[in-house]
Amino acid sequence: MIIDISMDIHPDMQVYKNLEAKKPKIIIQNDFENDDMFESKIEMNLHTGTHIDAPLHFIKNGETIDRINLNNLITKCKVLDFTKCEEKISINDLINKEINKDDFILLKTKNSFGDEFDFNFVYLDKNAAEYLSEIGIKGIGIDGLGIERAQPGHETHKILLSNGIIIIEGLRLKQIVEGEYQLIALPLKILKAEASPARALLVTFT
Amino acid sequence: MIIDISMDIHPDMQVYKNLEAKKPKIIIQNDFENDDMFESKIEMNLHTGTHIDAPLHFIKNGETIDRINLNNLITKCKVLDFTKCEEKISINDLINKEINKDDFILLKTKNSFGDEFDFNFVYLDKNAAEYLSEIGIKGIGIDGLGIERAQPGHETHKILLSNGIIIIEGLRLKQIVEGEYQLIALPLKILKAEASPARALLVTFT
Repeated sequence: MIIDISMDIHPDMQVYKNLEAKKPKIIIQNDFENDDMFESKIEMNLHTGTHIDAPLHFIKNGETIDRINLNNLITKCKVLDFTKCEEKISINDLINKEINKDDFILLKTKNSFGDEFDFNFVYLDKNAAEYLSEIGIKGIGIDGLGIERAQPGHETHKILLSNGIIIIEGLRLKQIVEGEYQLIALPLKILKAEASPARALLVTFT
Repeated sequence: MIIDISMDIHPDMQVYKNLEAKKPKIIIQNDFENDDMFESKIEMNLHTGTHIDAPLHFIKNGETIDRINLNNLITKCKVLDFTKCEEKISINDLINKEINKDDFILLKTKNSFGDEFDFNFVYLDKNAAEYLSEIGIKGIGIDGLGIERAQPGHETHKILLSNGIIIIEGLRLKQIVEGEYQLIALPLKILKAEASPARALLVTFT
């Protein structure tokens, strides 16, 4: 069974801080009114919808999205329920969950319950990012368009990315209950880019 | 093991007929010279590099890429070697291979051997498309940027797409030997679009 946990990409979708410049544009170049085929192009920020951040996003000379080890994106994962958290996920929230070295964890928060951009989206506290880096997780996903806000210096991003922890943002986890799943999250292979929109799925192989 | 069979996306990559308008543009909006982060956007035709065509590409009111059944893109597949074919793959070439109902076949041709656009790329003959539709395959991939050329009316596309056969174009199969594999090919979830760039992999689960 395949469960799609990707955001729909369309011109009116939620974008970071509702900035007009971050909204994707889909330009139809041919359609059946003027041709015998339908063809279009897209213009989008690389952090549109469900997307993966590579270290270059916040680390000078950091690894780029085309170099990410795909073995870390086709992997078992744990969905952890933090829908009770109001503002941020802190160490005190994490210590109640079983999180081990090499885990890929997906943080389900109340971000999943709305389709509009929430200026007060739930994020991962920098101390919590430090805690997860010490455990040595390999990746983390969240259902907000960012994994942090309101922290000067973008420390959550920098701690995770400098420790080689992959970040997936913009997941849709409303229907997913806490538990273990097989994750498949594939970015486009855009050379030298700091991120890419991705298709993300939870799969049960039978 | 994961084998990446996707094309690199970059501004100088091969595009259909070398048309300048079809080349992707990557626009860096922030970098470490002017900011403490790196952020960029992309402009690209939806048929850039390795991509999946949905029926809407050639069928009026046809199914769009966001509606494609992902069970047909995470599936066993057969790589078939047609590197001896000079111009096109015809029925006579196909009858030498074992192809069954519900197969997903990937056509390896000499298109895989170069990185430049070949105006004489090897394609699938319309009669061969008809033959495959009668067998009832569920999907087909090829290593050219198109699955057809030099056929008025785009009949190969229309035959395949009107029979619900998914088309992947722009695969990179140079290193792949004929045989059975597990395919994972994921397009972005772009609403109402006729196609999407995709990440395509052959995977061995252990």
